[in-house]
Amino acid sequence: MRLALAQLNFTVGAFDRNFTLMREAVVRARAAGADLVVFSEMAATGYPPRDLLNHPDFIQANLAQVERVAALTDERLGALIGFVDPNPSSDGKHLFNAAALCHRGAVVARRYKSLLPTYDVFDEDRYFEPAREVAPIEFKGVRLGVTICEDVWNAKGFWPSRLYHRDPVEELVQAGAELLINISSSPFSLGKPELRREMIRQEALKHGRHFFYLNQVGANDELIFDGHSLGFDPDGAVILRARDFAEDFLVYDVPTGGTAGAAGAIADVSGSRVEEAYRALVLGLGDYVRKCGFTHVVVGLSGGVDSALTAALAAAALGPDRVLGVSMPTRFSSEHSIRDAQALAHNLGISYRLIPVDDVFAAYLKALAPVFAGRAEDVTEENVQARIRGGILMALSNKFGSLLLSTGNKSELAVGYCTLYGDMAGGLAVISDVPKTLVYEIARFVNRQATVIPESTMTKPPSAELRPGQTDQDSLPPYEVLDRVLEAYVERNLDVGEICALGLDPGLVQAIVRMIDRAEYKRRQAAPGLKITSKAFGVGRRYPIAADYQAVMDARSPQPT
Amino acid sequence: MRLALAQLNFTVGAFDRNFTLMREAVVRARAAGADLVVFSEMAATGYPPRDLLNHPDFIQANLAQVERVAALTDERLGALIGFVDPNPSSDGKHLFNAAALCHRGAVVARRYKSLLPTYDVFDEDRYFEPAREVAPIEFKGVRLGVTICEDVWNAKGFWPSRLYHRDPVEELVQAGAELLINISSSPFSLGKPELRREMIRQEALKHGRHFFYLNQVGANDELIFDGHSLGFDPDGAVILRARDFAEDFLVYDVPTGGTAGAAGAIADVSGSRVEEAYRALVLGLGDYVRKCGFTHVVVGLSGGVDSALTAALAAAALGPDRVLGVSMPTRFSSEHSIRDAQALAHNLGISYRLIPVDDVFAAYLKALAPVFAGRAEDVTEENVQARIRGGILMALSNKFGSLLLSTGNKSELAVGYCTLYGDMAGGLAVISDVPKTLVYEIARFVNRQATVIPESTMTKPPSAELRPGQTDQDSLPPYEVLDRVLEAYVERNLDVGEICALGLDPGLVQAIVRMIDRAEYKRRQAAPGLKITSKAFGVGRRYPIAADYQAVMDARSPQPT
Repeated sequence: MRLALAQLNFTVGAFDRNFTLMREAVVRARAAGADLVVFSEMAATGYPPRDLLNHPDFIQANLAQVERVAALTDERLGALIGFVDPNPSSDGKHLFNAAALCHRGAVVARRYKSLLPTYDVFDEDRYFEPAREVAPIEFKGVRLGVTICEDVWNAKGFWPSRLYHRDPVEELVQAGAELLINISSSPFSLGKPELRREMIRQEALKHGRHFFYLNQVGANDELIFDGHSLGFDPDGAVILRARDFAEDFLVYDVPTGGTAGAAGAIADVSGSRVEEAYRALVLGLGDYVRKCGFTHVVVGLSGGVDSALTAALAAAALGPDRVLGVSMPTRFSSEHSIRDAQALAHNLGISYRLIPVDDVFAAYLKALAPVFAGRAEDVTEENVQARIRGGILMALSNKFGSLLLSTGNKSELAVGYCTLYGDMAGGLAVISDVPKTLVYEIARFVNRQATVIPESTMTKPPSAELRPGQTDQDSLPPYEVLDRVLEAYVERNLDVGEICALGLDPGLVQAIVRMIDRAEYKRRQAAPGLKITSKAFGVGRRYPIAADYQAVMDARSPQPT
Repeated sequence: MRLALAQLNFTVGAFDRNFTLMREAVVRARAAGADLVVFSEMAATGYPPRDLLNHPDFIQANLAQVERVAALTDERLGALIGFVDPNPSSDGKHLFNAAALCHRGAVVARRYKSLLPTYDVFDEDRYFEPAREVAPIEFKGVRLGVTICEDVWNAKGFWPSRLYHRDPVEELVQAGAELLINISSSPFSLGKPELRREMIRQEALKHGRHFFYLNQVGANDELIFDGHSLGFDPDGAVILRARDFAEDFLVYDVPTGGTAGAAGAIADVSGSRVEEAYRALVLGLGDYVRKCGFTHVVVGLSGGVDSALTAALAAAALGPDRVLGVSMPTRFSSEHSIRDAQALAHNLGISYRLIPVDDVFAAYLKALAPVFAGRAEDVTEENVQARIRGGILMALSNKFGSLLLSTGNKSELAVGYCTLYGDMAGGLAVISDVPKTLVYEIARFVNRQATVIPESTMTKPPSAELRPGQTDQDSLPPYEVLDRVLEAYVERNLDVGEICALGLDPGLVQAIVRMIDRAEYKRRQAAPGLKITSKAFGVGRRYPIAADYQAVMDARSPQPT
């Protein structure tokens, strides 16, 4: 059986555009003499459609999309496509997350997803009824064991604890499946491609079956899909690998007599964690801008490494001619900040404007003077400056129709070292899931061949430059410590006691955790940010604001006995 | 059996404060000679704790809370309390949404929630494993049928279609339950108290059992819990009713021999939909401010009805001495705007400041002039003014430690007739779930005894006053039409075709729906807003931003054949 895997970049709800992509893949599959072309989970809608699934007309359009794809099939070529199928019962959720096998111009079989993730960014139980049972699909004399994404993430023996009671892959093998196919829309996070590869490999090996894993590629809102589709033979050897962070199309002849097949195309993929992060961000930024209908972006350039990296990512994703960098100095800005910003813009080849905002700052202070009379300067005046810059950048965004990118990193956002409506302003928070220490690593990756981000940007102490002589370390612990606590607390949900046991100072850990908890109100109003870690702030991390965090913290501290 | 229902206002994670509330209720129950005091769903944590449930130490603190409550019980008085119980199995979700029966100083029985809501604002499948089976709890010779919130929302015969396959109340009755008790944390929306009352009444009647329904009261973030606990006799007659939007404590002697009991306390509750909305907003505003640790608020006063109502709600919730109203005129502000704002502040007895911002606006225009040279004025300059006001109000918030309330209504937020970081700035969006037509109704309710909101505020055409002679109706359809489409599209998920069939102009419907869809990016960065309708923007409405809405719209239009 000759399989074609179509790893495509879908846009949610863009039925015509998505259909064009699938039609082109069908043409290629037919030209390659394939028996079956495989599309990803919810290829008919783009993933994730979220509450668009509550609209009956959206569901109808998705069914029409499946019919259009089915109409492209014939006696020789079938298609397997992810879609959303209405549940005819008056009991249970209204939909199934489904796969349709199309053959001879029609849908000939439907299968449903059994395991519905509801952790992190996932809400699938919000919409879908699980499959009650699974069964192979017979196609051209081969019994296909088709599963959908999460169905393959609950294998017995692989996990110390399991979220679900069933193992649909095992059930399918016991029911006679000869060839295993999983269609996914599995979002990227650092380390996940390796985990996924090992998980699928073990499944192929355990069940002694060829296993093909086809993943969506491209970004929709916060989520970046890395593609990186895979094929394994029954001995667990990789026989097929698609590109990561790019569309791809692979063909493979599966030996159906039980003999081993030859190796297929093995694409080059990212060689390091830092390269993966870089390529994920470039894809995520570019897709967000394009899929929201923008062509140009604007970025505030402070001379620091966060805005420098953001501008470099934008130039890589969109081309330098579509990026405008803006410096907005006040009396507290250093000479080197403007110099570094200008050098960066020059190195990247992006447009650049200098807009001094000290007169606006002075006008604000004068307007507020009668009300502030007798009060000392404090963080208020720093925030006013940050908000003026946000206002200027939004004015440029409004006037020129370009998307404003905000430049805050994950470490700042975690502890609230950022200003609502100021540096947090923007349509996309490009690096809001990148801890500061990783920001430096990716910046060095950007500079791997030539210095794009100026050396002094990389080496000077980070500063918001909102008062004389200020540096981040006046207010924050060293980023090396902050980022370790962040990873332990936010990504791994460790208790304060467990984090201290990593060898960190208990007072510092307590202070950082408290800062993270208390900044939730800022993050609730943050721009969407590209997720690259196992736990990003945003839709995948859902905390109350009006909680008594002192009490929560007390619950977290070792109790005095 | 003498039951005591403790309808209390818990704060998420405030273990000591919540325990004090429960201890006081135990004292009252004991003094009243009660056999059993009943607390609401997740009384041990406060509801909703959301991802705090992922922290093992938070779960431990919740278990300790149950032990503290259990220690208050004795031979005579038991307690039923909602909490979160760890799932000992290595398969399935890690927790159960649970109820503990405490007696003689210890937990003597545990029961789990069967039905886990995942629609609208609910994410319970994210955390909880459902109960596999239910069973009555024998207490002092009576078999109690204990269910938790959603368990009572899936009765056969009551709903045309059901989200779940089971009916835990029926299962309990079949297993011999003699007395039915449901503990809830059921958030308020307009019309829901009536629905809930009829639903519980029918359950009592159908099963021929006394049915007691105990609901949490108070607000946490977006959600307002109305209390309004109820008791019905086996004939479906109301025998007990707690206050709405306030704490309450009720005692009732349940006749356990099967005879009818006497009527218990029947509290006065809101007499109209508008009164319900008003009282919900006052409670929601006050609880958000207090539970976030603030005492004072600041509100921008435009002279319009939205900001007037917001200020009136704040004065009612917190007392007028804790509210500061601020007018920030520019060259486009009318005389009557300032006059109306001043009159409102005077009528309410709140503090008032006038801060003209024309000089700040001029400084912005001057800073932007070199970049904007040759470009016509457009919405950019209007947004600059709105953002200056946001910046001034945030400066006041920062300097004086008061919470900024934003004043936008649901109709504006729906169609994006609002400025990010401008009038959208604030910690709480008080009326962001109140359609404009309802804003007027509630404002008239505020004025029911004396004119608080000036008559001219009520009667003049709504205007943002960001350019000469501007009114809302220059950009928007009449609010009566807009609000009808909003209700049909957002609350009822009707298709465009179905909305047109309500007798509305198809072009107008299409245009409004498109505006609603396209403004999602603004709403993603909106402040939390108090939910009072069946579908508020915010955590309960989850849409993608980077979707192709033109295509989605095409899917929604009647297709040309």
